[in-house]
Amino acid sequence: MADAGIRTEVAVGIDDGLIVAVGTMTDVERELANIERSGDSEYHAQCEYIDCAGRVVTPGLVDSHTHAVFGRPRYDEQELRAAGAGYMEIAQKGGGIHSSVRDLRLRSEDDLLALTRARLQRLARYGTTTVEIKSGYGLSIEDELKSLRVIASVQSEANLRVVPTWLGAHEIPQDYRSGPDGRRRYIEQLVSEQLPTVAREKLAIFADVFCEPGVFTLDETRAILETARGRGLTLKLHADELEPSGGAELAAELGATSADHLAAISEAGIAALASSSTVATLLPGTMFFLGRTRQAPARALIESGAVVALATDFNPGTSPTPNLPLIMTIGVSQLHMSVAEVLLATTVNGAAALGLAGSTGQIASGFSADVALWECEDAREIPYWYGDARCVATWCRGEPVHTA
Amino acid sequence: MADAGIRTEVAVGIDDGLIVAVGTMTDVERELANIERSGDSEYHAQCEYIDCAGRVVTPGLVDSHTHAVFGRPRYDEQELRAAGAGYMEIAQKGGGIHSSVRDLRLRSEDDLLALTRARLQRLARYGTTTVEIKSGYGLSIEDELKSLRVIASVQSEANLRVVPTWLGAHEIPQDYRSGPDGRRRYIEQLVSEQLPTVAREKLAIFADVFCEPGVFTLDETRAILETARGRGLTLKLHADELEPSGGAELAAELGATSADHLAAISEAGIAALASSSTVATLLPGTMFFLGRTRQAPARALIESGAVVALATDFNPGTSPTPNLPLIMTIGVSQLHMSVAEVLLATTVNGAAALGLAGSTGQIASGFSADVALWECEDAREIPYWYGDARCVATWCRGEPVHTA
Repeated sequence: MADAGIRTEVAVGIDDGLIVAVGTMTDVERELANIERSGDSEYHAQCEYIDCAGRVVTPGLVDSHTHAVFGRPRYDEQELRAAGAGYMEIAQKGGGIHSSVRDLRLRSEDDLLALTRARLQRLARYGTTTVEIKSGYGLSIEDELKSLRVIASVQSEANLRVVPTWLGAHEIPQDYRSGPDGRRRYIEQLVSEQLPTVAREKLAIFADVFCEPGVFTLDETRAILETARGRGLTLKLHADELEPSGGAELAAELGATSADHLAAISEAGIAALASSSTVATLLPGTMFFLGRTRQAPARALIESGAVVALATDFNPGTSPTPNLPLIMTIGVSQLHMSVAEVLLATTVNGAAALGLAGSTGQIASGFSADVALWECEDAREIPYWYGDARCVATWCRGEPVHTA
Repeated sequence: MADAGIRTEVAVGIDDGLIVAVGTMTDVERELANIERSGDSEYHAQCEYIDCAGRVVTPGLVDSHTHAVFGRPRYDEQELRAAGAGYMEIAQKGGGIHSSVRDLRLRSEDDLLALTRARLQRLARYGTTTVEIKSGYGLSIEDELKSLRVIASVQSEANLRVVPTWLGAHEIPQDYRSGPDGRRRYIEQLVSEQLPTVAREKLAIFADVFCEPGVFTLDETRAILETARGRGLTLKLHADELEPSGGAELAAELGATSADHLAAISEAGIAALASSSTVATLLPGTMFFLGRTRQAPARALIESGAVVALATDFNPGTSPTPNLPLIMTIGVSQLHMSVAEVLLATTVNGAAALGLAGSTGQIASGFSADVALWECEDAREIPYWYGDARCVATWCRGEPVHTA
């Protein structure tokens, strides 16, 4: 991760949504002319030139972990937390994940679609062209499907790339918390009803589980994810966010595409990820917003050989930011990552965390023409001007997504 | 600071750059009509209506501590620091304040003006309508005057309010570091040449000193600031940023308008500020960007009765952000301030930190029509959507500064 492959004086040729040439302007024009000669139209009439001189071009950013389908923003909880309220006190006051669940269940699919659509536009303003979105505030068959249909709708209408993840195992819903076997019944519902329906309707690429003591145990997580894999879904885990409980090790064992959070990952967890192809997805904005000082051990992960991605964790309770470059800042300033590392963590490695390593996240021939243009003279300025929106334009599959 | 005076269903009447009425639309229209009847023109023909329904209006933000006149951004140092380099190592590699001094001295006034003008536009995008700007990267008579003339130029041409501060005592320049009495000679130059010239040319409202062990001692600070006061300047101090050295106490004793930084303020310093009218200006973005976990004791300051302001500390080494709402987020999430407190800290109290408490920072009759409009339904969303640019328009003295 030490070399982000930054080059200067380079032109990028794009045809039919793909990058087809990277090199000198002469090389790129020759390649595009070859493509056009094999077609039926005049070369120069078709070309559009965008002058990026004096600015920085990166792959469109990949935000590989968001919970963007929600209703009410939970700004009241930020202030309660600042005043010293803990997780349990906030939950008792009606806050936390269950608050978002109650709220989402009351909303129509159209309402959620309008909210999610607007949020995607905000994510795109900061350079993101590929975004993973999880369900997980429904926690019933009906409401998880509703959430996933919202994701499918934005996926079909948005001009950025959307990757859907089922997170029915985000929490045990409150309506399953009474009675001795509620927990068992919810997990039974997940594996025998929710998951088969989601898989049958092809509403998700990934299945994710919040694996953490007090949420889903290692054994429960394993059972849910093995069922998901059997239904054709690829796997993610919320792992070791608060306690080192073996989530990272389980992710590696199951061949999950990513293990996410990892602020409390153990030495064994680091070793497990380092010797696997499971991406370690770090979400340092969450710890920042929660006011905690502990961050995931990015350096130890990188130095042990793990593949590290960074994402926003965009969600209404613990990380309401659409600004992935700000997460890069936290990566450098607080996780001691280099600029090359944070650039790779939000492009190549973000793509790997979504199983898209071969198609997006790089400016190279054959990759999707997903590109971000920055009001910077040097790539190091992207994390440096923190909180300043320096992305001035993005393209996804060669089409404009956002222009400042 | 517990009550930010947030009201709903309110209209604001503006005439000739001043707020003249706040209340129901009927009240405001009646007040404006009264003003117009005493003039010579038709009432309705002159009025411009701006519909802010469903959004939040705040006073234009006051960023009361910036170092916006600099040349080269120092992004290389962020990465060196992330890799473990300390202050001394960065200085030995040519970084730190002296790096900005060498760079600024080589630049023309026009070059610096163009850079500073562009930075003010970025500050305005995030809601700021009043900004303090310090010199302090010149550290020679010629280059301090050059910096202050740049500030005077943006002050006269910008449509936001600019407050100039002389910070010739930012550091002992390298050309005064050889020989046993270099330090004494620089301070002598400050008090007998720089300060009198700055005062005579009316290039600064405030004089500021970086009071910190290793920079300027308490006695040196006192001598410089007493001279400044004698020349008609009002006073600020960089105090107790790294060590509790009595800077806050000195600020209170000298009747300084503000004491800034304060991450290492002592109990005695808190008590001194609490019993004075010196504003405690906290700059938590600096600690965030430097990757430090210690922040100024905002709660202790507030609870002891001190007046607390928040500012960006916008500068090329330790806080390159123009985004004051992000500083509010750090205020809530990491300094445990309430939303009312961070709103007041960036409006009323920011104005107090610039001696402008009676003229800006409030939406009230008689105050300058300095207003920010936010894409939010609730003021709590301003610090909540962290890193998201929610300010959609600002006005200063009734004139548009920035529109998204």
